[in-house]
Order: sequence, then C-alpha cells, then structure tokens
Amino acid sequence: MPKVRVIHGPNLNMLGQREPHLYGSTTLQQINDRLVARGSEMGIEVACYQSNSEGDIVTEIQICRGQVDAIIINPGALTHTSVAVRDALLACEVPAIECHLSNLHRREEFRLTNLTAAACVGQISGFGADSYFIALEAVARVIGR
Amino acid sequence: MPKVRVIHGPNLNMLGQREPHLYGSTTLQQINDRLVARGSEMGIEVACYQSNSEGDIVTEIQICRGQVDAIIINPGALTHTSVAVRDALLACEVPAIECHLSNLHRREEFRLTNLTAAACVGQISGFGADSYFIALEAVARVIGR
Amino acid sequence: MPKVRVIHGPNLNMLGQREPHLYGSTTLQQINDRLVARGSEMGIEVACYQSNSEGDIVTEIQICRGQVDAIIINPGALTHTSVAVRDALLACEVPAIECHLSNLHRREEFRLTNLTAAACVGQISGFGADSYFIALEAVARVIGR
Amino acid sequence: MPKVRVIHGPNLNMLGQREPHLYGSTTLQQINDRLVARGSEMGIEVACYQSNSEGDIVTEIQICRGQVDAIIINPGALTHTSVAVRDALLACEVPAIECHLSNLHRREEFRLTNLTAAACVGQISGFGADSYFIALEAVARVIGR
Amino acid sequence: MPKVRVIHGPNLNMLGQREPHLYGSTTLQQINDRLVARGSEMGIEVACYQSNSEGDIVTEIQICRGQVDAIIINPGALTHTSVAVRDALLACEVPAIECHLSNLHRREEFRLTNLTAAACVGQISGFGADSYFIALEAVARVIGR
Amino acid sequence: MPKVRVIHGPNLNMLGQREPHLYGSTTLQQINDRLVARGSEMGIEVACYQSNSEGDIVTEIQICRGQVDAIIINPGALTHTSVAVRDALLACEVPAIECHLSNLHRREEFRLTNLTAAACVGQISGFGADSYFIALEAVARVIGR
Amino acid sequence: MPKVRVIHGPNLNMLGQREPHLYGSTTLQQINDRLVARGSEMGIEVACYQSNSEGDIVTEIQICRGQVDAIIINPGALTHTSVAVRDALLACEVPAIECHLSNLHRREEFRLTNLTAAACVGQISGFGADSYFIALEAVARVIGR
Amino acid sequence: MPKVRVIHGPNLNMLGQREPHLYGSTTLQQINDRLVARGSEMGIEVACYQSNSEGDIVTEIQICRGQVDAIIINPGALTHTSVAVRDALLACEVPAIECHLSNLHRREEFRLTNLTAAACVGQISGFGADSYFIALEAVARVIGR
Amino acid sequence: MPKVRVIHGPNLNMLGQREPHLYGSTTLQQINDRLVARGSEMGIEVACYQSNSEGDIVTEIQICRGQVDAIIINPGALTHTSVAVRDALLACEVPAIECHLSNLHRREEFRLTNLTAAACVGQISGFGADSYFIALEAVARVIGR
Amino acid sequence: MPKVRVIHGPNLNMLGQREPHLYGSTTLQQINDRLVARGSEMGIEVACYQSNSEGDIVTEIQICRGQVDAIIINPGALTHTSVAVRDALLACEVPAIECHLSNLHRREEFRLTNLTAAACVGQISGFGADSYFIALEAVARVIGR
Amino acid sequence: MPKVRVIHGPNLNMLGQREPHLYGSTTLQQINDRLVARGSEMGIEVACYQSNSEGDIVTEIQICRGQVDAIIINPGALTHTSVAVRDALLACEVPAIECHLSNLHRREEFRLTNLTAAACVGQISGFGADSYFIALEAVARVIGR
Amino acid sequence: MPKVRVIHGPNLNMLGQREPHLYGSTTLQQINDRLVARGSEMGIEVACYQSNSEGDIVTEIQICRGQVDAIIINPGALTHTSVAVRDALLACEVPAIECHLSNLHRREEFRLTNLTAAACVGQISGFGADSYFIALEAVARVIGR
Repeated sequence: MPKVRVIHGPNLNMLGQREPHLYGSTTLQQINDRLVARGSEMGIEVACYQSNSEGDIVTEIQICRGQVDAIIINPGALTHTSVAVRDALLACEVPAIECHLSNLHRREEFRLTNLTAAACVGQISGFGADSYFIALEAVARVIGR
Repeated sequence: MPKVRVIHGPNLNMLGQREPHLYGSTTLQQINDRLVARGSEMGIEVACYQSNSEGDIVTEIQICRGQVDAIIINPGALTHTSVAVRDALLACEVPAIECHLSNLHRREEFRLTNLTAAACVGQISGFGADSYFIALEAVARVIGR
Repeated sequence: MPKVRVIHGPNLNMLGQREPHLYGSTTLQQINDRLVARGSEMGIEVACYQSNSEGDIVTEIQICRGQVDAIIINPGALTHTSVAVRDALLACEVPAIECHLSNLHRREEFRLTNLTAAACVGQISGFGADSYFIALEAVARVIGR
Repeated sequence: MPKVRVIHGPNLNMLGQREPHLYGSTTLQQINDRLVARGSEMGIEVACYQSNSEGDIVTEIQICRGQVDAIIINPGALTHTSVAVRDALLACEVPAIECHLSNLHRREEFRLTNLTAAACVGQISGFGADSYFIALEAVARVIGR
Repeated sequence: MPKVRVIHGPNLNMLGQREPHLYGSTTLQQINDRLVARGSEMGIEVACYQSNSEGDIVTEIQICRGQVDAIIINPGALTHTSVAVRDALLACEVPAIECHLSNLHRREEFRLTNLTAAACVGQISGFGADSYFIALEAVARVIGR
Repeated sequence: MPKVRVIHGPNLNMLGQREPHLYGSTTLQQINDRLVARGSEMGIEVACYQSNSEGDIVTEIQICRGQVDAIIINPGALTHTSVAVRDALLACEVPAIECHLSNLHRREEFRLTNLTAAACVGQISGFGADSYFIALEAVARVIGR
Repeated sequence: MPKVRVIHGPNLNMLGQREPHLYGSTTLQQINDRLVARGSEMGIEVACYQSNSEGDIVTEIQICRGQVDAIIINPGALTHTSVAVRDALLACEVPAIECHLSNLHRREEFRLTNLTAAACVGQISGFGADSYFIALEAVARVIGR
Repeated sequence: MPKVRVIHGPNLNMLGQREPHLYGSTTLQQINDRLVARGSEMGIEVACYQSNSEGDIVTEIQICRGQVDAIIINPGALTHTSVAVRDALLACEVPAIECHLSNLHRREEFRLTNLTAAACVGQISGFGADSYFIALEAVARVIGR
Repeated sequence: MPKVRVIHGPNLNMLGQREPHLYGSTTLQQINDRLVARGSEMGIEVACYQSNSEGDIVTEIQICRGQVDAIIINPGALTHTSVAVRDALLACEVPAIECHLSNLHRREEFRLTNLTAAACVGQISGFGADSYFIALEAVARVIGR
Repeated sequence: MPKVRVIHGPNLNMLGQREPHLYGSTTLQQINDRLVARGSEMGIEVACYQSNSEGDIVTEIQICRGQVDAIIINPGALTHTSVAVRDALLACEVPAIECHLSNLHRREEFRLTNLTAAACVGQISGFGADSYFIALEAVARVIGR
Repeated sequence: MPKVRVIHGPNLNMLGQREPHLYGSTTLQQINDRLVARGSEMGIEVACYQSNSEGDIVTEIQICRGQVDAIIINPGALTHTSVAVRDALLACEVPAIECHLSNLHRREEFRLTNLTAAACVGQISGFGADSYFIALEAVARVIGR
Repeated sequence: MPKVRVIHGPNLNMLGQREPHLYGSTTLQQINDRLVARGSEMGIEVACYQSNSEGDIVTEIQICRGQVDAIIINPGALTHTSVAVRDALLACEVPAIECHLSNLHRREEFRLTNLTAAACVGQISGFGADSYFIALEAVARVIGR
C-alpha cells in the first residue's frame, strides 16, 4: 500500500481557530483525519506532519527519502523564503505536490516569489481545504504512472 | 446536470502530433473524449473548445456567461500575455480553474508572468494531461460548495 | 461632413450586461446609438465597430486610412499588450483619440503599461461612458484646427 | 450656479511668451479669460489660479474644500513629483479632473510617473490649450451626474 | 524542390501604401512576387502569407509542420508580444529565420524584448525589403547543410 | 527648560476637518495645545509649526539650529519626495524624531520610499495622533541621555 | 491587569556581551527586568521571551492569541526575511508594536525590506534600548483606546 | 556688459555656519561677494539669489528670461527631485551651467538621479566653493562663443 | 592548540546518501572525520556541527564567541536567505571562512544573492568536498597572521 | 572595385581549434580565405582582421574611414561591453553589418545587452560560419543601393 | 613648476576629422597644442596622451603616480565601462579631473552609468573643447589649495 | 611536472607600491617569486603573467590551451566587465581558479557583477596575498582528481 506524507508549514496549525467566518471552522486535525480516511478509501496510507520551524520541515522531508511514495506539501510562508525546503525536496527524490489554500495570485506581490514550486511535480492552489483532497487525487495519478 | 466548458489555448491542438516521446501520443481529441466520458461518470456535462486566437477565446468565455457552471481553461501562451482573457474571465462571472500541462516554475522566466491566474478560483499545473482530469475533480468540489 | 470611426476593443461588448449596479445598465449598442445621434447634432458622421480580436481591430484601423477624419479608440485590454494596434494607428495616419471608461491609475499596476497612447493625439479616461462623448468634443476641436 | 476652480501648476504662466511658434501665442491670461467666458455660456462660474509653488497649490486645493463643485488641475511638473498635491486632492473631497497640454506618453520616460492622477476622477491630455476646454465639458458631465 | 513559406505579421500589408518616401513604394505584393521569382531561380518553391491576426499566424505555422523545409518569418509587432508564435515555431519543428525590415536596436526600447528569436535558427534585420532576400540566401545555406 | 519644536508638513492642517469618522474630530490646533500642555507637565517647552510649503519647512528647520533641543517632525508627503528637508535636518544638527499618524507599510508602495528618516534619530509611526505624544516621551529619553 | 508579551528575535540575547562600548553594557536580562518593573508601575503585566529560531517565535506569537492584550516585538533579522512571523502576527489577532534598537534607514539596503511591519499597529525604531520602553508607552495608549 | 544670475538652492544659505571644519568657514555671503568681484574683473555683472523654496527658484529662473546672458545654478537638493526647475530652465531659454560643491558620484545613490542637468549646457562639480568660480570661467567661454 | 568549528547548514547531512554518482559516496561523517584528522596533522583542533535549523546554527555561532579561533561555515541554503546567520557571524567576532561545495555562479540566479559572505573574512567555493580542506589551509593562514 | 573590411573580435582566432565536434574544424584562416574568394567572385575586395584587443579594433575601424565601402564586424564579446567600438563605428561613417555565429537569444541573458548593434546598418546572426557569407550578400545589397 | 597630464580616451583622436560641422574642425593635436600653450601661460607644464586601448590608459595613469601633480582625463567611452581605469585612478593617488565634451545627461541612457567619476575630484562636462580649458582652471585651483 | 600559469589583471602590478600600510609592502614580484618557490616545493611549475590590457590577457589565456594544467587568475577589474576573458577561459579548456585579494562582498555593489566566475572551477577571495597561495593548494587538489 503506497504511503503519502502530508507536510503543513508554519501557522497552518491555526486553521479552524482563526477567523472561522473566513477560513471555516474545520481544524487542521479534522483535515488530517479526513485525509487519512480518504486515503484509506483510495488504498493510500496517509500520515500528516505540521511544524512552524523550517529546520524541522527540512528534516521531515529528508526522512521521507526512500520511505514514502509521495509528499503533499503546503509550505505556507516558507514557499516564499526557504531555499532550504527547496533543496530538501530536491535531495529527498520523492515526488512532491505543492498545495495552497488560497490563490496566491490574488494576494500580496511578495507571495509571487515561489522558491519551492520548481522542486515539486506540480501545484494545486486556491481551493481552500479542498486543495489537499484534490492533491490526493493528483497523487493517485502521479503514483499510478 | 451541471455544465463545464473546457477551453484550450493556442498550440494545444498540436498535442499528440508533436514530439510524442516527450508529450505522449495522446491527441487533444482523445483527451477531450476522455474528459467528456469522465464528466459523464461524475454527472457533469463537459464540452470542449480550442482556438489559436485570443479573440475567439475571449468570445467563447463571454458565451459561457450564464450558460455553464464552471470553466476549465488552459490559456497556453496567452497565460503570460493576455489581459483580454483575464478581463473576459472576470466579466463572465463563472468560476474558472486554470490548468497547465507543465510546471511553469521549471521553464523560461517569462512564463512566471501570469495575467490570467488572478481571474480564476485556483490553479492546477504540472501533471501533464492529468492536469485536466484533476481539474475536473476540483470542479466537482467548487460546484458542490 | 467629417467622418469618425469609434473602435471598441475586447470585452466592451459586455457593457450593460455585466454587473449593471456597477457599470450601469446602458449597453454598448445604446452608447453607439447615442454617439451616432450626438455626432449627427455636431455635423459628424459616426460609425462604430467592436471586436474581441486584435487582428480584426488592426485591420479595421488600416481600413480607416484615407477614409475617416478621426478615430476614437478604446483599446480595452489591448492598451497594455498590443504593439500591433500601436503600429496600425501610426501607419493609418488618421488622428486618433484614446479613451477609457475607468481611471487606469486606480487599477492594477500592469494597466499603467500603455503601448497605444503614444500613437494617439491625446487621451480621455475615467468618466465612464461619458469618456466617449467627451472624446467626440475633442474630435471636433482636433478636426477644427 | 456651480463653481469650478482651474489650477495651473509651475511654469504654465510662461504660456504664449515661450516659443510661440511651438506652443502658440495664446497667453495663460487669454486661456483663463476664454475659460471664464465659456463657463459663463455653460452656466458655470469659473475662477483660475496659477502658482509655481507646490505649497501654494496645496493650500489652494484645501481652500476649494466645500467651496467649489469641481477642480480642473494641470499640475505641470508636480504631476510627477508631488505626493503633497495628491494628498491635498484626496483631502479636499472635490471631484478633480487632471489635464495636460501635451501627450505625456510621447515625452521623457520620467513623465510616465504620475502621482496625482489616482486622486482625480479622470484625465484629459494631449490637446494643447483645448485640453482645458474639453475638461470643462467633462466637468459639466461629472457635475450633472 | 525544397519549399519555403514566408510569413508576414501584422501591418506588413501596408507596405508601399504608407509613407512611400520613407519605406519606398514597393508593395508587399511586389515583394512576394520577387521572392517567388528569386526562389524559382534558386530552385526553391516560395509561398507567402500575411495576416494581422496572431491566431491565424499560429495556425499557418502549425500547417507548415512536415510540409515545408524552412520558414522565413517577419513577426512584426508580434515579435515583442507573442508567446503563442514562439510556441508554434518550436512545435512545428521546421527551421525558421526571423527577419525585420528595420534595425530594432535603433527603435523604441520595448522593441528589444524579443520573444520569437530564440525559436528561430537565426535573425536578419535592418536591410529594409532586402532583409527578405538575404533571408532567402540564408535558407539556401540552412537547407544545404 | 529644554525646548522642542514640532513641525507638521503639508495637509496636516486639515486634521479634524476631513472625514472626522475616519481621522477623528480632533483638530491640529487641539493636538498642538495638548502637546504644549503635556510638554509643560514634563518640563519641556513645546512650540508647533505647520506649513504646506517645503521651502518654509526647510527654513523652519534651519531656524531650529542652536535654538531648540529636539525636533519632532511629521514631514507628511515630503517624507517621500524631499531631499531638501533631509539636508536641512542634517545641517541643523538638532536631534530629530520622525513621526507619522499612519503605518506607512500598510499604504501605497511609493510611501515606502523614505528620504528623511536617515536624517532623524528614530521613527514612531502608526499610532494616529498618539504618535506625537509617544514622540514626546522619546524626546525626553533622547535629551536625557 | 492587562498583559504584554515582549518577544526578542535572533541575536538579541547577545546584548550587553557584544561590543559594550558600542551597544552599552546592559544585558537583555537587565532590559527585561526593567521592562517588568516599568510595566508594574504602569499597571501592566510584562513577560519576555527570546529565541534565535523563527519557528519558536511563530509558536510564541500563536500562544499569545487570546492570552495577552498586546505584543511588543523586535523581530531582529527576521524583520527582513520572515513571512511566517508576519502571518503569525496577523493570525494571532493581538495588537503588536514592532520596535528596533537601531534606525534601519541608516544601515544596509536590505534592511529596508520589511515583511513584518504591515502586520503590526505601528513601529518605534532608533532609540537603542529605549525603543522598548517607548513601545511600552505606546502599548498603554493602544490598549487605552 | 553681460549679466549672469547665480542661483543657489535650498540649504546653501547654511554654508559657513555649518560644520566649518568640514565645509570651511566661508559663508554664502562671502562667496557671493567674491563672485561679484571676480565677475567685475572679468567684465561680467554678477547678481546672486538664494531660496529654500522650489517655487521661488522657478520664478527667479523665469525672470531671467531675456534679462540675463547666463545662469549659474546650484539646485542643491532640487537637482534630484524637481521637474519644475528643469522645465523652468528649458522655458527661460538662457544658457545655464549647473554646479555642485561636492562630487555627487561619491555620495548616496539617490543623488545620481539628476533631473536638471539635461536642461543645462554643462556641469561643474566636486570643487567645493571653487565650483562657482570655475563656472564663471565657463560662462565667459559660453558667452564668448 | 588553536580551535576551529566547522558548521554545516541545512541538507548537508544528506551528503553521500544522495545521488552518489553526482556528489560522490563520501558521507558528511567521513568528511568530518577527515577534517579532524587533517586538523590534527596541522596542529588545529577541529570540531564539527550540522543542523537543518537556522536558529540552532545562530546559537552555535554565538557559542563560538571567545571559544574558538576560527569558524569554517557552509551555510548551504541559508547563504541566500538568512540575515540572522549574518548578524550572528558579526556578533561572535570570530574570523569566519565561508565555503561551498559548488560554484554558485553556475547555478540558479537566486543563489547569487549572498547575505552571509560580507560577514566572513573570505570565501572558497566550487571544489566539492575539497572546499572544506582548502578552507582549513586558509584558516592556518588567517590564524597565523 | 568596392572594398570590404571583415573585423573579428576577441577569441574568434580560436575557431577550428576549439571543440571541432561543436564548431566545426574550419579555422578562421579558412573562413577568411573563402571570404576573399567569394568576394572576388562578387567583384568585392575583401580584407580580414582579427584582434583580441578592444583598442586595436577601435583603431582598425577608424582606419576604415574613407578607405572601405563597408565593414562586416563580429565584435564577439565586445558586442556586450564596448561603448568604444560603438563610438568608433559611428565615427568612421562606413556602413557596417554586425554578424554573429550563434543565435544570441538562445544564450546567457547578458548576451542580450548589445551596445554595437545600433551603430550598424543591420544584423545577421545564428548561421555559424555562414553568417559571414550571408553578410557578404547583404553588403552587396547595401552598397548597391 | 607643477605638471599636468591630459589623458584622452578612445576615439578622441578622431576630433576635427569627423563631422566638422558638428564637432568643429579643431583637431586633437590643435587642442593639445593650445592646452600646452595655455598651461605655459599659467605656469603649468602640460603633457598630453591619447589611446584607444584601456590597458594603455591604465598604464599611463599608473606612470603618473608620483610624477605629476594632477590629471585631466576624458575617458570617453571607457567612462561607462571601465572598472580598470577607475581602479588605476584610485591607485595612482594623483588628483584627477574628469571632463567630457558633451553633456552626458542629454545622450543615451547607458551614458549615465559612470564608473570613473567617483575616482576623480570633480567633473566638468558639456562645454565642447572648452571643457579641457575649464578643467585647466580647475587644476590651478585644486593644486593651489 | 604539472604546469600552472598565474595571470594577474589590471593594476595588480601596483601591489606593494601603493598604500603599503594597507596592502602590505610585498610587491607583485615578491608574490610571484614566492609562488614559484612554493610551487617548486609542491612539484608544480609555476609561471606568472600580468597585464593591464584585456586583449593581452585573453591572448595569454588562449596560449595556455594544451600547454598548462591549470590557471590561477585574478582578473582584477576585468572580473566585472569582461565577457572576452570569460569566453577565453571557456575556450582554452584548462581548469581555472579565480582568486581575489579582497572580499568582494564588502565593496561597491558593482563588484558583485561577476562575469568570469562561471568560467572557472571555483573561487577563493578575501585572504589578501594569501589568496594566491590557497589557490595553489586548490590547484593541487583539482589536478590530483
């Protein structure tokens, strides 16, 4: 059974607590639970990880090397600032899919600087929490190739 | 039954004919047929359109207004150059999903200028022909909201 | 009796249909009718043209050469992207007045790139549909010189 | 009877004296007289003001607050350099129309930096002294709304 | 007998009509006739095409695929704005030679942005109508390799 | 008893009159009175000055040389455009504190160009009218050093 | 009694140890003690935190949510590089005041890139260790509104 | 006897008072007196003017029109910010020589933006107060042509 | 006996595991062992440290203050993004030598942004693992001065 | 009989020796011989010159003044860096044709900076050694005008 | 008797030969002769040097070290491109005055990049051949200090 | 016995003569002698070359082709300006090591433009004259691979 690691970057642990009228009241824990469940239906073993620390995320990506079949990563703020996450994604040699809750093209200009995308197979962005589930569909297709 | 228009920009009619060892031998017609079939399974009526002309694509987007429930658009080269397509997407007031075969972050720098993305709900890119099918999953979620 | 061609660029055919609470419920057809009527009062023969296609607009401008006394052009999105429209305006050697419904200085930064303005006599922008009628006053003065 | 203040920026007092073969021999005083006369025909009370000093123009704009129905302003060189004039236009809350004698898109590149335009309703430029009279037509339409 | 398609971009149909004291009184038709004649002398079958529309030019380039031995293209204004023409040139896999009547380095700065050149074998520019005939010499050498 | 000059730049004389629901109904006169009173409590003699003219503000700063112990300056729009105010602050050799009502990092991008800040000891911004009173606390600390 | 968290970014733990002739011999511990004491006089409960790690600072800011009434933050080097700290400040919905020991406008150009300031109420900079105490005055005013 | 107007921009009235160990203890009055004396020796009538106000300097330049044979101008801070001074210099049609005390190429980067130089015949900079006297030599040569 | 701390940044722990045909099969542990051995021969005590975390590296550099005679640092990805590492290197006041395995001038453009180099004595780059050993030679020379 | 000087810039003397599988084994001497021969057939006297020194090339261009009818110049690396060659080409007043072996639009970005092209009649690039022979055809047409 | 070396950069040997209606018919030799004569009157020994080669000019500047009292240099095209000339001027430690025939602010934008000016005491530009003679006046003042 | 050519760029012949308190009193000749001696100890034949001329350095590099095993080059000012040196280094196909006396990251911004580095194996900079000797160690390792 193929394995997928879902990695959430800084501040994504605040989902559901922060401005629920805006981001919905679904917490990150609930998203993770639903990802595991949906993965299970699809015959994919899903495990999730979140950290506010670039260094810990780099280490988690390194651990994935040779251990998982695909990574779904929402690097959050690190998307725009972390060469280290980029390098880790290239070094771990596991196909990765970058996803974002929001459509970055509708936000501040500095969010158009994207350091991690070139180290991933593809990107999915703008669908809120659904971005993760669409990414899971994408994983199935990437692995199935 | 919800309706979706899939709009392919310039040069996408060359798929399958051009460098099959690179892009695969699937033609645009075959992709369209499979999109219609997959849509049918999902209870979505899919219709496809391709043009090399910016003006025709603008007109096709305008026609979608009030007629379809979602647009899947791969603007191709127009992604980087067409304010007219952007304006048409905003004017037609139909939720649109931008998709690309390739990961634009791995290509020439001018492909990072994206004029159309801000006029779409979200983006899916980098999964080859699968980008369209993943976009169809995304449509189901966007409509279902 | 002097002749004026009014040329509307991409998406201007959507006027009146789209967000009437915002742009008013006057359609492009109604604007055109009123321009012809107002021209008639001023002793100017007005004819109008709209296209979503850069190529067709270039051709229409070429046709104006030697046939009309002035052009009023709202290039819409092509203002920011079309060297071809600029070149056509220079080549047709008819005095042209660029007009815009909105004040471009209050919009996205890419709308400050203006390729067509230098090929026109002057610009009128920001007065909504009135921009066209003010342009007609300007034509009278330009021709009358 | 609605009131309009016409404000001329630095060096516009040189009109008519300087290079008459180029700019015509009409002086600023003559333009002002004709604007008052034309305003009178249109039922608009026109008063004119010129200064070479940014500070005085800022003060003049502040005085307009609650006293006049519209401002026609040719900020001249201050168009490109004065945040203070921009702020004054925003603070006075009177609809303003920016006008320029020349077509700025045909001149030095630094004249494309425009700080004041976003604080005005619209712009009219490129028609020589006629720009002021066309602006008066625009005022009638803006007030008449 | 090798085949060459000569493709002229927007506004080149105005040659000979426009400012004959500047561009000469030779029309595009005359240039085309002379290109066919000169090709015939060289044992090359030349056919010419002109359009003001980016979409039509993209389609014409696609048609060349597998049908002609070389393309001579003067993309005109599209040189600076069209990713679609670039992509078409790459997709058609026919050696192309870009040519321009004028020396782009002596003109407006935006004409230094060149999107199509990298998709061609080489460039010839600055020799007026002769640029096309020099390009024909170049074709002979490119094909003869 | 130490002396402080408070210098207000262009348009700050409009405070309290303009959009009171937004900026509050406190006038500049009231702020000045409260600054004098608060200074008096702190054993500091406060005198205030406002001008819309860059030249007058430069002169006022020059007058401060050798006459006052500290300057509190809100250069308003001149912050972004005046090298003359910067040079005057450096020439007068009195410690100056720059303050702003608004948080400049939340406003238009051109407000991030700051010519005067490097000529001041420090900056206080974003606290509305309170910025002046916090600056007075800062003065006490700067003088007390 | 209102609560304030003071957060010090990377390298601020070196204060007092490093170049005492330049930065003074006051250690961060001494500053913290004095902030607590001064807060106590003002009826404000002050608690301090320092870390060299972006991730830990993000987490500390998240903890502040709903627990403290204001944050005083000197992000140090992270001011210029951390989108994560910016996002955390926005997510925690506690009014924050950014402060800096030095006047950033007198230092290297890269220190003018400020990612965190727009997520704070206001800024205080340039007053050495006094910047923290002036910020405490600002907190009193912000809370008191 | 030819007439020369020497125009000093903002803050130059501080010469001699400010940092005498650096700029020397010669005041602007002394420089002016020596310029008049030196002019007298050379058979040139020299008159001097200083203002901190851009508007007054613009007016002074306008007054020179038709009244003086040459202008020596040290625009000081206005060199980098004033389009109005540039326009005035062009409008007055008197040959002008720009001079600066310091070598601008050794100072802050923003001092490399020079708006006034293109409106002058030539520039002399970097020789301290001697720059004015060297400019007087240059005037003799410019007039003598 | 002089002491040297070798500090390896993010992802350098992957050496030897990742793409051995490219980077060689020498692990970081082996490099460290050889550095200690080579140091011993040279009469230098070498100790090595690696972390994926910017915060931990900052802390490690701070610890070096007063404890070691030189630092050899390969900041890896942090070279391009970390002001905190730069500040730590400046604060610790130990001579540091920056080294890189690859020649940064042959890689992505963002790797030309270097924040840490100015805080080091010198740089050695492009020699693969040998860069560390060459840096050790450099240390001997720097210490020996 | 018209005369043409062919001028080869730095490193072109390495042709044929360097990477023959890439650039062919034809030496510069052989190209020169063939150019002389081909010129002879065309009734043109061709003489060739190569230097690695900018100064010598400038002098060679100066010598051409009044001595030759056309210059064919491949400035090599000097294309991107030499204002002196540009100035020499303008000063010598001989029509020059710039040619390059490679298509500069497919190479490093700094090769898009072209200082010499604006001083030439036209450019020919991308055809390998054939670029020189095509340039000779162009010369015939330029001279023949 | 003080010594001055006048150094002329590339292409200045063409003076008088090239476009005499534009640059005058005075040759460089004549300027040099007049400079020697004028120097003699002023009690200054003048020697002149011209080269088209950056290397030779660097060497000439090096030779000046300890041998001459001042350098007058017109680096011509090297002004904009030569770091080597800049470094030589700094290394030779002789006060240098940069002069230019033309006003660089009225020419191509690349002529605003000036690498050598910061290595000179001051600049004189725009006075044609007179620039050299004015520079000689400046030398007298610089030496006389 | 392997051969190494050490190539010194413009102005390096001034070492030891210029500002000995800053750069030391070691002359280039002494450095060369010590390099030869040190090479001899290491079993490497070292020969040195210096020129102020870009053209001569290009020629010297060309001569190295097939004659030496490695190049140590300090291009001096040419580092930032010479595409010709870069091209020569690529063409000669000898491994080259770039070295600099100073740490370029601590100097003027234009010294961060580096044209030659990408044509070398690696770089060593910032160690004064020691940079050459460290480079010799690097050569040994590069040759020994």
